[in-house]
Amino acid sequence: MTTFLDLCRSAIGADYVVTDDADMASYLIDWRRRFSGNALAVVKPANTEEVAAIVRLCNQFRVPVVPQGGNTGLVLGSVPDDSGTAIVMSLVRLNRIRAIDTVNNTMTAEAGCILENIQNAAAEAARLFPLSLAAEGSCTIGGNLATNAGGTGVLRYGNARELCLGLEVVTPQGEIWSSLRGLRKDNTGYDLRDLFIGAEGTLGIITAAVLKLFPQPKAQLTALAAMQTPEDALRLLTMTQNHCGAGLTGFELMSDFCLQLVSKHYPQMRPPFAQDHAQYVLLELSDNESEEHAVALLEAFIGDALEAGIIQDAIVAASIAQSKALWNLREHIPLAQAEEGKNIKHDISVPISSIGQFIQSTDVQLQQQFPGCRMVTFGHLGDGNLHYNVSPPAGDSADAFIAQQAAVNRVVHDSANRYGGSISAEHGVGALKRKEIRDYKSAVEMALMQSIKQAIDPLNLMNPGKVV
Amino acid sequence: MTTFLDLCRSAIGADYVVTDDADMASYLIDWRRRFSGNALAVVKPANTEEVAAIVRLCNQFRVPVVPQGGNTGLVLGSVPDDSGTAIVMSLVRLNRIRAIDTVNNTMTAEAGCILENIQNAAAEAARLFPLSLAAEGSCTIGGNLATNAGGTGVLRYGNARELCLGLEVVTPQGEIWSSLRGLRKDNTGYDLRDLFIGAEGTLGIITAAVLKLFPQPKAQLTALAAMQTPEDALRLLTMTQNHCGAGLTGFELMSDFCLQLVSKHYPQMRPPFAQDHAQYVLLELSDNESEEHAVALLEAFIGDALEAGIIQDAIVAASIAQSKALWNLREHIPLAQAEEGKNIKHDISVPISSIGQFIQSTDVQLQQQFPGCRMVTFGHLGDGNLHYNVSPPAGDSADAFIAQQAAVNRVVHDSANRYGGSISAEHGVGALKRKEIRDYKSAVEMALMQSIKQAIDPLNLMNPGKVV
Repeated sequence: MTTFLDLCRSAIGADYVVTDDADMASYLIDWRRRFSGNALAVVKPANTEEVAAIVRLCNQFRVPVVPQGGNTGLVLGSVPDDSGTAIVMSLVRLNRIRAIDTVNNTMTAEAGCILENIQNAAAEAARLFPLSLAAEGSCTIGGNLATNAGGTGVLRYGNARELCLGLEVVTPQGEIWSSLRGLRKDNTGYDLRDLFIGAEGTLGIITAAVLKLFPQPKAQLTALAAMQTPEDALRLLTMTQNHCGAGLTGFELMSDFCLQLVSKHYPQMRPPFAQDHAQYVLLELSDNESEEHAVALLEAFIGDALEAGIIQDAIVAASIAQSKALWNLREHIPLAQAEEGKNIKHDISVPISSIGQFIQSTDVQLQQQFPGCRMVTFGHLGDGNLHYNVSPPAGDSADAFIAQQAAVNRVVHDSANRYGGSISAEHGVGALKRKEIRDYKSAVEMALMQSIKQAIDPLNLMNPGKVV
Repeated sequence: MTTFLDLCRSAIGADYVVTDDADMASYLIDWRRRFSGNALAVVKPANTEEVAAIVRLCNQFRVPVVPQGGNTGLVLGSVPDDSGTAIVMSLVRLNRIRAIDTVNNTMTAEAGCILENIQNAAAEAARLFPLSLAAEGSCTIGGNLATNAGGTGVLRYGNARELCLGLEVVTPQGEIWSSLRGLRKDNTGYDLRDLFIGAEGTLGIITAAVLKLFPQPKAQLTALAAMQTPEDALRLLTMTQNHCGAGLTGFELMSDFCLQLVSKHYPQMRPPFAQDHAQYVLLELSDNESEEHAVALLEAFIGDALEAGIIQDAIVAASIAQSKALWNLREHIPLAQAEEGKNIKHDISVPISSIGQFIQSTDVQLQQQFPGCRMVTFGHLGDGNLHYNVSPPAGDSADAFIAQQAAVNRVVHDSANRYGGSISAEHGVGALKRKEIRDYKSAVEMALMQSIKQAIDPLNLMNPGKVV
């Protein structure tokens, strides 16, 4: 492999072919620090041509490639296995915003751009790039697209897939395919763009993308509503959508126990109500007119919802600080759960109309099999996507509970499947769920996926061991 | 082939295997009556299982299959070639709406459902299905998805692709793949759905789909604005989007000559202005609040646009009848152009910011090469998609002009390509543009498309001679 690495060094410069164990370590360990792999080298090309040159060398020497952006994935999709035969291809040096077109409402950005930088660049051009998720300060747009990232803006703006008009991709043969045209309509052949999006680097390496921009809303209002059941939250969702249409840009469910955990570990953060309620919804309204218009609209349907008995209480944030405080409640749930100790996470989706039944019946099954386990149920209700997490019974050994992870997963994923749902709504498959998806997908679907993988990457060099 | 047809008859009933020439004729001729093919038979299965059974027979006997919905396509995608070796598979008997879920905001419909019936079924459930196009009274949702149809609602709601959450597809091997789960988020593998959407039946036969529904707007307002140039129309677009966000649901450009043609052939239809202007925009605003709110919003920014000199005049429809009259102007352009005689049509898209330059420079080139030719330029400006049609010089022989079609296409398509555009924005490739896309696509892209076709349909039995 010396020849291979030497050729890599010639192609992109010796400084960018990292082989020192200490220097490689952060590229080899996953975000949640559950798994660390090995690699021949971490290579850091500067541009698309260098990515292509490295991939051609990988072809020639049959070296597997693991593409990596911010390495913030949750399913072991961006770290290599422990064989040490692959290279990690870090895209972080491809970090230029190539163009912003405020009439076409598009931005052309390289794969290694950090999501937050893209949001900021859009804002500087008086536009909105609405993809928003917890890791936005360190994840990259290439990774967001490779995993079809979700987040809190999906309800209005869709997943990462819906925010992309075109891609530049290095194919497994080291050729460059580009559809960076910024077109909203183009029906001239197969949808290669959406095939690469969500393929987690197993069909090619995304090196740049044209992203959709939107007008910045004139006002954004946040409110917290309290209700008795997830079904009531669904009623509020339908009511809000009828009133506000596309103005509803966030709708996050949080159970009372979630907020209890937050208050326990971050005592300054409490729900702003006199009494506790069983469920809460954080909702966000964006308005193209004015603050006053948004306030009037929100207060009107909150009044209606109170009157109809759908909700028991509600508060509308009166300032940006108050709004941040409400979002902080939501964003600190995973952190509070981590403070509480180890736990078992899920990222399921079901049809929105089945969410109430899913929660009810799965809660019962888990209590039967794992008595006392504590449900930390929250998530993107408006998308049918819950982070339906399970903490050990109070006082129990976390490790003993975690040892049952496979059995807990099975209950939750079987239940999601029974309601026509997905076992990975927004986190992807990676290496973590690669075997498990076969339990839920038909043989026809697996065969179609495998035939595509075989056709596009016949040597199986692109992120092998992930997805298919 | 007697055995094959007999087995088809056994599979779906002899009444539904049509071999009589007169009975087959309407299935073999294209919508614009430019081409008529031949077929072994027209088969009309009643359900997905029958579709699969026929496809398995086609596999066994190596008989090509041309899937067909309403047969309203404009690129010869749904008619067979003249060899007479293929069957036409008409999906019109798969016309059930299987389910409507008003909480999940989804409808599950079979491929043969006529688009207008789907719109009506949504309306009866107090929901909106926003796909809307000229052929909606006879086209089917299966065809809409197979061609990723566009239409007038794309600006707000996206192409057919964006309106679909899942598919049921019969594969080229006669197996059934289903993703009819109604999920808004599912990241568990390759995006097979979007691969089948837009593949024009060359990778499999769509038999059913889960469609997205939306709240019905409380009010829909139509306005006609007059301006001097397409650039002014673009300024109005940006201004309107900033004011109305997702409330802007239609933005159609029409040149003065388009409306002159309409008034000439339909004298009762005239633009409602005292004087003529160079360009017009028909815009539609949808509002989730109230008629009053929509009127106030529209009048405010029309006032701003007049004051800023972006537009010279504008009228807001005061009744549904007036609104229909304005839309009639737009919808009668293709009809008036047909009345005027034969013409050469295009369906190009460019980045929205390049539309003005595209029109200007292409107009000049055409006048140089085909002096006196008359431009009938209209279309979905908000999507960057123009029906940039060319009528013969006044008084010239239409046939002589039409004989130059390839040269006219070349000028227009080369120009679209120069501006980073597409030669088929919403109509697809079919047999008509199959060769031509190779002039504009890279070898890498064609190779990717071909490898996918080969992987999924190795016998090349699915709509052969189309797309790839």
